[in-house]
This record gives sequence, structure tokens and C-alpha cells, in this order.
Amino acid sequence: MKILAISGSLRAASINSALLRTVRQLAPAGIEIDLFQGLGELPLFNPDLEANIPATVEDFQRKVAAADALLIASPEYAHGVTGSIKNALDWLVSYEPFVSKTVVVLNASARAQHADASLRETLRTMSANIIESASVCIPLLGKDVDEYGMIRSQSSAEAIVKMLANLNEAMTLLQTSEQAVFPLR
Amino acid sequence: MKILAISGSLRAASINSALLRTVRQLAPAGIEIDLFQGLGELPLFNPDLEANIPATVEDFQRKVAAADALLIASPEYAHGVTGSIKNALDWLVSYEPFVSKTVVVLNASARAQHADASLRETLRTMSANIIESASVCIPLLGKDVDEYGMIRSQSSAEAIVKMLANLNEAMTLLQTSEQAVFPLR
Repeated sequence: MKILAISGSLRAASINSALLRTVRQLAPAGIEIDLFQGLGELPLFNPDLEANIPATVEDFQRKVAAADALLIASPEYAHGVTGSIKNALDWLVSYEPFVSKTVVVLNASARAQHADASLRETLRTMSANIIESASVCIPLLGKDVDEYGMIRSQSSAEAIVKMLANLNEAMTLLQTSEQAVFPLR
Repeated sequence: MKILAISGSLRAASINSALLRTVRQLAPAGIEIDLFQGLGELPLFNPDLEANIPATVEDFQRKVAAADALLIASPEYAHGVTGSIKNALDWLVSYEPFVSKTVVVLNASARAQHADASLRETLRTMSANIIESASVCIPLLGKDVDEYGMIRSQSSAEAIVKMLANLNEAMTLLQTSEQAVFPLR
């Protein structure tokens, strides 16, 4: 199972990026997590460019299409989503392979309710398939995370392992149901 | 009175940009409206760059500081703000001259309620002073606006003139109250 992990912050010491690195470290065999590094290289979305997609956008879109699921962790800036994560999603709004894409939304701060709600509203509007059982809040403070993204708190590590188990279960169910339905079409 | 107008869309045929061009054309003497052209040149916000602000960001911040008010018109993408307008605001969150900045938020579509609400929530969180009497919805369709941004519909032109009158009144009141309070400090 291939998962594309996207952090909505470009800060080197981002807690959300650290969370995703830790998720990768704790992922069980069978779940391969690719940390997307190109968010900061995407140009600002301009519908006029959609006829002639920039190379960095094309690379991003191809990675999204190839992933079985997206895993998004993004901070809240001034009670809103980050411009960077919304800009990336703006490039996917008219990208047909995104429709019905499985998405998990992680929230690293219990106070960041506005950005989390806005992100989910946008993803639903884009016809994403949000896995609610895995889209959880794993509250982290700076002291809980070191520069390599290792989670020091046992409760956070346990929450990540549980999130991954729920994601795995949901993805397996989805794949089974797709296989079961296919011959009936 | 100097107003910096910011369109949240980079599309050449943007209705929001056309709306702002028309506002400039209809502005009475004493209201000077500068259409900000650099939104698409702002890099994606990265807190690590705040110690060494890029030149395009510095130019944007200087224009914001010099303006008596900001006039924002921005479309809704997938029930959210555009990544471009939020990215611009992200660069102002820690910019001290933005605090208490007078802001007008125009909405060119009666259906775009999510983006309008998110934008206002973010601006309030950034301690902007939103002028409600001028922050109105002026619903436009493509057929109402030509490529030069002239509003063809009389009702839209009237709504713009009324918005400008309300903005003028609010700004005059603000300036008067600032002058009146000053000697008492």
C-alpha cells in the first residue's frame, strides 16, 4: 500500500513534518510512506496555466495519482489553512484522478479546529474519501518531537500506531469491496 | 485616502480582478486605488524566511503598511479561500504594521459563503479592522463584466458606488476619531 504524505508547513522544524516522518518510521510492513518534498516548489495556482501544466505540478499530480492514499498533516495559520497546503489542493481540484482519492487528515494541535474543519470541507468538496477512523488529532508540542521527527511521548506513538491500524483496516476493506464489485459491473 | 486592492485570483480573466478595476474607475476624488499586481510573485510562506524577507514580500509589506485600507476580492476554490490569497495573508500574520489595518472584503458570488467566512475569520484573528458596511457581496457573472473590468449591469455599478460611499464614511469617521483622541493622550 503506497501512501503519499504531505506536510502543509515549509518550516524545517515543522511539527507536522516531524509527525509524518514518525508515522513513516512506525508504519508496519506493507505500508510504504513517501514524504512529499515538493510542496514549496509548486507555483501559485493559476487556472490559465492548466492548459500547460508546470513540471513541478505534473510531478505532484503523478505522485497523487500513483498513491493509494494521501496523508495530510498541516498547521493552522491565523485560524485558517496554510496558503501552501491550499495551493497544492487548488492544483488538484480539476485533476480527475483525485476524485474518490482516499485521504487521511491528521491534526497535531487540539486547538487548530478552524484549519482542520476548512481542510475537510475542501477535501469533501473535491470528492475525496476521508477515512474518519484514521483522521485523528495527535496533539504534539515542540518538546514532544525532536529534530529527526521521533515522537518522545508514548501516548503519541500509541496514537500513531492505532491510526495506522485503522488506516490499514479501512484500505483493506476498500480494496476487498472494489475487487468484489468489479465482476458485477 | 490610499487603498491597496488585492485580487485573490491570478487568472487573467478573473471576475474579482475585474471587480477591483471597476471599483477603481468608479472611485470618487479623494480615494486613490492601487491594484496590487505582485500576488503571483510572492513565494510560498515559510517562517524560516522571515529572518531574511524576500524582496517581493518586502515590497508587498511596504505597500500594505503605506495603505490607509486594503480592499480584498477573492474567489472561492473548492469551498475554501484561494491558496494565493491565504499565502499573501500568511506573510502578514507576524507583520506588525498589519495590526488594526482597515480592511474591506468584497464577495463577487453569493454562493461563495465558505471562502468569505474563512477570509473574515483569518482577518479578525490577525486583528484587522473589517469595515462591515463596505464588505458586501456584489454578485457578478461572466456576462456582467467585460475584459476591461467595466461592469455592464447598472445594479452592480450602483452597489459599487454605495460600497465606496460607506468606505469613505467609515474611513473619515476613523480619521476624525483618531485626531480627536490624540490630544487627550
